[in-house]
Amino acid sequence: MTQTLDPSDWNAFRALAHEMLDDMLEHLSTIGERPAWRPMPDEIRASFREPLPISGEGAEAAYREFTERVLPYPNGNTHPRFWGWVQGSGVPLAVLADMLASALNPHMAGFNHAPALVEHQVIAWLAQLAGFPADSSGVLVLGGTMANVLGLAVARHAKAGFDVRHEGLQGGQPRLLLYGSAETHGWAVKAAELLGLGSSSFRQIAIDHEYRIDVDALRDAVARDRADGHRPFCVIGTAGTVNTGAIDDLRALARFCREESLWFHVDGAFGALANWSEELRPLVAGIEEADSIGFDLHKWMYLPFDVACTLVRDAELHRATFAHSPSYLAETTRGVIAGGLPFADRGIDLTRGFRALKIWMALKAYGVETFARAIEENVRQARYLAARVEASDELELLAPVSLNIVCFRYKASNEINEEILIRIQERGIAVPSGTVLHGRYAIRVAITNHRSRIEDFDALVDAVLTIGRELA
Amino acid sequence: MTQTLDPSDWNAFRALAHEMLDDMLEHLSTIGERPAWRPMPDEIRASFREPLPISGEGAEAAYREFTERVLPYPNGNTHPRFWGWVQGSGVPLAVLADMLASALNPHMAGFNHAPALVEHQVIAWLAQLAGFPADSSGVLVLGGTMANVLGLAVARHAKAGFDVRHEGLQGGQPRLLLYGSAETHGWAVKAAELLGLGSSSFRQIAIDHEYRIDVDALRDAVARDRADGHRPFCVIGTAGTVNTGAIDDLRALARFCREESLWFHVDGAFGALANWSEELRPLVAGIEEADSIGFDLHKWMYLPFDVACTLVRDAELHRATFAHSPSYLAETTRGVIAGGLPFADRGIDLTRGFRALKIWMALKAYGVETFARAIEENVRQARYLAARVEASDELELLAPVSLNIVCFRYKASNEINEEILIRIQERGIAVPSGTVLHGRYAIRVAITNHRSRIEDFDALVDAVLTIGRELA
Repeated sequence: MTQTLDPSDWNAFRALAHEMLDDMLEHLSTIGERPAWRPMPDEIRASFREPLPISGEGAEAAYREFTERVLPYPNGNTHPRFWGWVQGSGVPLAVLADMLASALNPHMAGFNHAPALVEHQVIAWLAQLAGFPADSSGVLVLGGTMANVLGLAVARHAKAGFDVRHEGLQGGQPRLLLYGSAETHGWAVKAAELLGLGSSSFRQIAIDHEYRIDVDALRDAVARDRADGHRPFCVIGTAGTVNTGAIDDLRALARFCREESLWFHVDGAFGALANWSEELRPLVAGIEEADSIGFDLHKWMYLPFDVACTLVRDAELHRATFAHSPSYLAETTRGVIAGGLPFADRGIDLTRGFRALKIWMALKAYGVETFARAIEENVRQARYLAARVEASDELELLAPVSLNIVCFRYKASNEINEEILIRIQERGIAVPSGTVLHGRYAIRVAITNHRSRIEDFDALVDAVLTIGRELA
Repeated sequence: MTQTLDPSDWNAFRALAHEMLDDMLEHLSTIGERPAWRPMPDEIRASFREPLPISGEGAEAAYREFTERVLPYPNGNTHPRFWGWVQGSGVPLAVLADMLASALNPHMAGFNHAPALVEHQVIAWLAQLAGFPADSSGVLVLGGTMANVLGLAVARHAKAGFDVRHEGLQGGQPRLLLYGSAETHGWAVKAAELLGLGSSSFRQIAIDHEYRIDVDALRDAVARDRADGHRPFCVIGTAGTVNTGAIDDLRALARFCREESLWFHVDGAFGALANWSEELRPLVAGIEEADSIGFDLHKWMYLPFDVACTLVRDAELHRATFAHSPSYLAETTRGVIAGGLPFADRGIDLTRGFRALKIWMALKAYGVETFARAIEENVRQARYLAARVEASDELELLAPVSLNIVCFRYKASNEINEEILIRIQERGIAVPSGTVLHGRYAIRVAITNHRSRIEDFDALVDAVLTIGRELA
């Protein structure tokens, strides 16, 4: 072989690797000095249509292409003034942890090695942080949608009333139905489709004026569906809706689910992390009563993509939903397979990467309290921005600020606000995203960014006012 | 704040980061000098039960814990003599690419940035390598199970004969059934369960003496199920079974599916990569006729975990199965959301990491031909090992060697062979895994390892003979 997939010259490779690392540290330590986002020139865009490389050009040349064509045109979410959708800002230590995880490259179905113990430990910590009992179960997955899908799959298994693993939903049984507010994130419809329930089986319940689920309307819907011969099985509560950051009354939902023998799943994509802060914990009270929670660590824990978690209170139900590996495997005590494949038995994925490591190292290095402070700071920033909006005659809030999301607009048409948003992005000032609330276009600022400072929000308000005046 | 999630001292952080990188390069360049695996001491095992860190100990201390407690006890799959299950060996350049991806940290739902163009380009290359048309579609996912689940979801959408997204499988329609050989990997049952089809809807068809699906038996089963009023919708062909590496007659399956208007999905977890080599391509002939393929890049492309791919011939059907984002988004031409969220619209995940980068850089640096040579080398090694087994009076092959998997045993009881396997692992000589074929315990060597050399297989054979004689 003229070329192997290990470096033929480790010294040259080492030099290149250190150059890459220096470049990345330079990149990370100077993010705020660059525009929050910038459009790609046409020639860059066109360059990504080159043919399949048959022969290699070498590692160094490949890296040059990265630095010239990829690095200068990222999404922007590591920037201090990126608040679009709900993305994360990336903790630098976790970047290194990702490199360590990739170098070690363990197979995380389970197996008998230290990385599996790291994941067990991380799950125990995350369960404790959610207020779940010590004997509950969990698994790390790629993202929030999958974290929620797994929760719903356990709910379906637990509450169907028939052997859903064997029969599926094709046995002519009563229709299984799930419930969540009309502000539930789009994942719920996707999950209902994937799981074979059908989108028509997801009942979207009306919201109150604070964008929270109307529990009385939920009660009526469940009663009506039962009367019609259907089988309600699960209620989704949202801790932090994607549009406005609203938090459902989780205690009321937990009580309702207990009374009605329904599974209570909480989508806590980012909001579940509020429970890490003593100050914010009351906002998500009741989350600890859920049967399952899905949440991300790459949003409000600020870790690099991708890592999310499903927690399930009843470990046996969790395993019973997914497990295929024979139980004797778990009792094997010798060799690489000792302990079985516990993580494969808690979800869909068999081969999985070592995403647990970045959580483990970040918690060890910085402690929960540092994350709690950063989360609290983002909530304070949201309140500050809301106050600045309210103090201006030219701006108005379009939704209550429950947590870390601010929806506001320049007092002008939807078209003007949409154009303000685009210009703020195009000029590289900041990256908010947009949404439509009761027919009105909102500039939406979702703060899950540990790099943002108060002056960044001043810069945003100034830009909205300036561009608004340009256009109005 | 006393501590932020960005380093307070970038110089100290830089020094630590370079130390980590040096350690990892040292680790990667000396793998073969260490045991293939070693058991963890009890005190290490117990150390992973420490309480949640409330206060941080700093990045350096966290890294020391990694080097002392995690790094010495990996799974072993980067070692030249690891051939357990089907795992990958990890290309060092891809470790660096993972670090770059984590530092850049783009959100890969889509969006208007260079990383999205990298993923589009990688998918086009992977489609070409599978023999798929240029206008086909694909998406990168966490692993092979999910890659296959997505293929089946498209199949279900395409062939159900009713609006499965809206109605689900709860509408009292004819039962949807899917088919694969009895040697189909366990993912298929998990997928049938997740999708609400039920495990009873997966028909396991008999195999021939080469562990391939019996196409006549398949034909009979489909006819019988149709006669019973059910609705067959999909056939799974396997390119490389997990037990023996057998490859179904994909051409015959493609023909059958066309005749019967069934969806043809190929599980090519590792075997699909044989198509990258001109020499091996005839073995998987017919794969290019599939409607969808699921395969891993972290197995036989040797990339670090986790990255896999779903390819779908009909791009419109792919999008129609999953898309929720309004089509006007794709036509937006300005700002960060221009181009919409094409990857979110091809699967379940919304927030996704930049796993495309390691494929892109590895193909650019080394070219397809280097990967093809490494894959061919693994197949040659399997044939070499089989020949050594056949040349010994004390050993016997337990299955034909179709590709890169060798199942053999010491001519003694199952118990003795199981003990041989465990001792080989415990002594750190090598890591094969085990399986049971027709009631006989086999030492199973699955070669998806770019570090293995011929002498590594000699070492294995010597160890089996030595330990076998000890025990017999």
